[in-house]
Amino acid sequence: MSKRILVLILIVAIALGAAGTYAGLAFFASGSSSDSGISSDDQNLLSQLSEQQQSLEENMGKMSKVVDAFSIIQENYVEEVDDQQLVEGAINGMLESLEDPYSVYMDQETMEQFNEQIEASFEGIGAEVSMVDGNVTIVSPIKDSPAEKAGLKPNDQILSVDGESVEGLDLYEAVNKIRGEKGSEVVLEVSRPGVDDPLEIEITRDSIPLETVYSETKEVNGKTIGVIELTSFSENTATDFKKALTNLEDKGMDGLVIDLRGNPGGLLPEVEEILKNFIPSDKPYLQIEDPSGKKTRYFSELESAKGYPIVSVIDGGSASASEILVGALNEAMDYDIVGEKSFGKGTVQQTVSMGDGSTIKITRFKWLTPDGNWIHEKGIEPTVEQKMPDYYYTNPMQLEEPLSYNQSDDQIENVQIMLEGLGYEPERTDGYFNEATKSAVEAFQSDQDLDVTGEVDQKTAEVLQTSIVEKIRDGQDDKQLEKALEIVSQ
Amino acid sequence: MSKRILVLILIVAIALGAAGTYAGLAFFASGSSSDSGISSDDQNLLSQLSEQQQSLEENMGKMSKVVDAFSIIQENYVEEVDDQQLVEGAINGMLESLEDPYSVYMDQETMEQFNEQIEASFEGIGAEVSMVDGNVTIVSPIKDSPAEKAGLKPNDQILSVDGESVEGLDLYEAVNKIRGEKGSEVVLEVSRPGVDDPLEIEITRDSIPLETVYSETKEVNGKTIGVIELTSFSENTATDFKKALTNLEDKGMDGLVIDLRGNPGGLLPEVEEILKNFIPSDKPYLQIEDPSGKKTRYFSELESAKGYPIVSVIDGGSASASEILVGALNEAMDYDIVGEKSFGKGTVQQTVSMGDGSTIKITRFKWLTPDGNWIHEKGIEPTVEQKMPDYYYTNPMQLEEPLSYNQSDDQIENVQIMLEGLGYEPERTDGYFNEATKSAVEAFQSDQDLDVTGEVDQKTAEVLQTSIVEKIRDGQDDKQLEKALEIVSQ
Repeated sequence: MSKRILVLILIVAIALGAAGTYAGLAFFASGSSSDSGISSDDQNLLSQLSEQQQSLEENMGKMSKVVDAFSIIQENYVEEVDDQQLVEGAINGMLESLEDPYSVYMDQETMEQFNEQIEASFEGIGAEVSMVDGNVTIVSPIKDSPAEKAGLKPNDQILSVDGESVEGLDLYEAVNKIRGEKGSEVVLEVSRPGVDDPLEIEITRDSIPLETVYSETKEVNGKTIGVIELTSFSENTATDFKKALTNLEDKGMDGLVIDLRGNPGGLLPEVEEILKNFIPSDKPYLQIEDPSGKKTRYFSELESAKGYPIVSVIDGGSASASEILVGALNEAMDYDIVGEKSFGKGTVQQTVSMGDGSTIKITRFKWLTPDGNWIHEKGIEPTVEQKMPDYYYTNPMQLEEPLSYNQSDDQIENVQIMLEGLGYEPERTDGYFNEATKSAVEAFQSDQDLDVTGEVDQKTAEVLQTSIVEKIRDGQDDKQLEKALEIVSQ
Repeated sequence: MSKRILVLILIVAIALGAAGTYAGLAFFASGSSSDSGISSDDQNLLSQLSEQQQSLEENMGKMSKVVDAFSIIQENYVEEVDDQQLVEGAINGMLESLEDPYSVYMDQETMEQFNEQIEASFEGIGAEVSMVDGNVTIVSPIKDSPAEKAGLKPNDQILSVDGESVEGLDLYEAVNKIRGEKGSEVVLEVSRPGVDDPLEIEITRDSIPLETVYSETKEVNGKTIGVIELTSFSENTATDFKKALTNLEDKGMDGLVIDLRGNPGGLLPEVEEILKNFIPSDKPYLQIEDPSGKKTRYFSELESAKGYPIVSVIDGGSASASEILVGALNEAMDYDIVGEKSFGKGTVQQTVSMGDGSTIKITRFKWLTPDGNWIHEKGIEPTVEQKMPDYYYTNPMQLEEPLSYNQSDDQIENVQIMLEGLGYEPERTDGYFNEATKSAVEAFQSDQDLDVTGEVDQKTAEVLQTSIVEKIRDGQDDKQLEKALEIVSQ
């Protein structure tokens, strides 16, 4: 790897993102705080701008056809067109021509959301909300958040925000109204189950940390197994992981399960720090391939591996940094992976600021597993395949007409799988509404105090869905975690 | 409408396109041949380029961020990127930002195909081909084409083109091999039913005209009804239509049906010429709205309407110029429209050459019906709604496993509708494979000399599909045309 590239890796912003849902911005300069990191980024930007200046004239020439097209559109289009719209369209179009979903342009607004995720915090009231029966409902206030301190409770339904009704808004729109700058105030009108009149609750917004590390212990086969769940790789993930790991080791755990399901990735240095806990210095934990095809292997300074077994859990939502982690744990250490094939993202992105708050995130490198495999668009296969119960994969239903006996329909299949998941016995799950399905629907309706019709109308479908969501949230049937615990405790 | 805009309408290339499948390029200067048209286009291009020169510097400034992005991508992307790719990407991106599917960039290759459609001709051998049981099969050679002269017959299966096997190619790929420049030679190896050894047929390619006007007469209720089908609005469509119309009038027809089903549109002047046969000078046949919102009404010089009734037939594939035609016939003349709601394209495009063979097609105007309705994204409702039999809307099937008794599946629904369309009686068409469906499958298999299994395997599915395609081609159940004939002959 050339000196120039090395410098880039050491200083420049590198981002890992996955599936269009998440991406991270990181700084390789070890020990650099977020602030100093941003200043290295700025320095790099300056040097890049100077390079650009040199080629600006040359590139202007190459782009003259684009400028012509800009003029043609502005002069001829049937409606008035904003210059900024065309400029952003052109940048988006160039990036789209790369046919790489990870090379994207982020305008100022997108950039703010991106930074929130990177920094693993946002400014708001600190409550998880969900749409329940069309109402914006508090699922749970985050511990020590302004929402909790102000007395918001689970199942509170939000009626209005600062006097404006949230009726008809979708969840995203409602959340946008509730969120706001740290220090600002918001008044929520709330309907609480069991309380007749709506409550007015005043909350001062604050900076809310987003937890990315959750840990617990499980007793399995007489052994104490630590379980660490990582929801993404954000700014404090490696530090929090290390704390959780030390805590579990102090408790004398006999084995560790790392749960990476639904983890879309994040910051490359964070996953590197985590790997340095597990992969000894004699084996690479990662390879990076630069545009010239040159590969560099990365090593830790760790003397020896952990004395306890480690099993990871992945699914189709485990991407990018999650795949770096399990790829290394498996290939370098032969640790098992339980679950379903991972997403398959084998590239590293860099962010380059455009100087006006907008940014280009562009694929800069490929990362390879310790053995040099590029898993891009392939994913990582678990060593022990384990699916979740079928009802985990059912879909929300929108029924125009009730489903009833002797009909045949895809939605009936969905209903049958849900019924089966809840312990009823529809006998078939192929979409044909047979006698047994009718009986199962009747039993479910009776148990839920619904009108016992044997038909699935919108109301019954909604209660079915809520029951399934509750059952999934309950985690009783987590076959993948069960399998991982079984293996690690053997 | 200002003078400048008027000049544009009179001289500039105007194109109408629909549904991404077709678009046309036209010249308003009446009597201009295609050649002189192109030269007016060039003149206009020159004047536009001079306008562009004036604003070039200004636009360069506006586009500097795009040039920066170009540099960032070229310097950082993980793979080497072609300049041309980014330039075309930027132009595509600007056009995409308009969120108008009809404003598009066409590179040189696309432009050639586009011109073929406009000019209603292509260079090749002149045979309609289709994929039958996985074989590229001649449906029919076009009259007087090189294919017919060389002796190609319907049902000939093409095995190879210039010695290269077509096995594994899709229809589009095979057609691309067969097509080629006028004057060039191609050798087809052909398997002919009833002939043991493959035949080698040498054909000299030529320019093949594409017919867009088909006419016939029908005797209904003791009256002679003329039927003219228009498949698109290309360079000679109005002239050919006029010929067909005169011919039918000479035969003393009592009414006219104009069939516009599946007609995606084409050249604005062609549909205008056609309308001038029917809409007298006291009523506008069309309105055009310019970017400023100013509307201009267009009139013919026709003295009086036709003495016979006229009914149009449309479906969801009737777009653009087709909609101009039926919109005017209905609103100005109160003629009936039979069929299904049309596509809904209410804009007029202009093509601007980029000087290197590539072209920007951009939406320049809205067109409105005589009464000033803009049907964009709404379509035109028939005055007499009439669907085709259900089997017209069935889909090709790809079966991994045979469909059999007591199963429930979307593909079974498809099979049931096909069986019903062919006169068998599956009793239900909702995707549940009941006893009656089994009996119907057995009867079909017996009639077709297939193994009588009562199950639908891939072979049975293919024969079903072929039977349906033949039945549709046969035109026996053309309920929409029947309804139109019934109305026009009352």
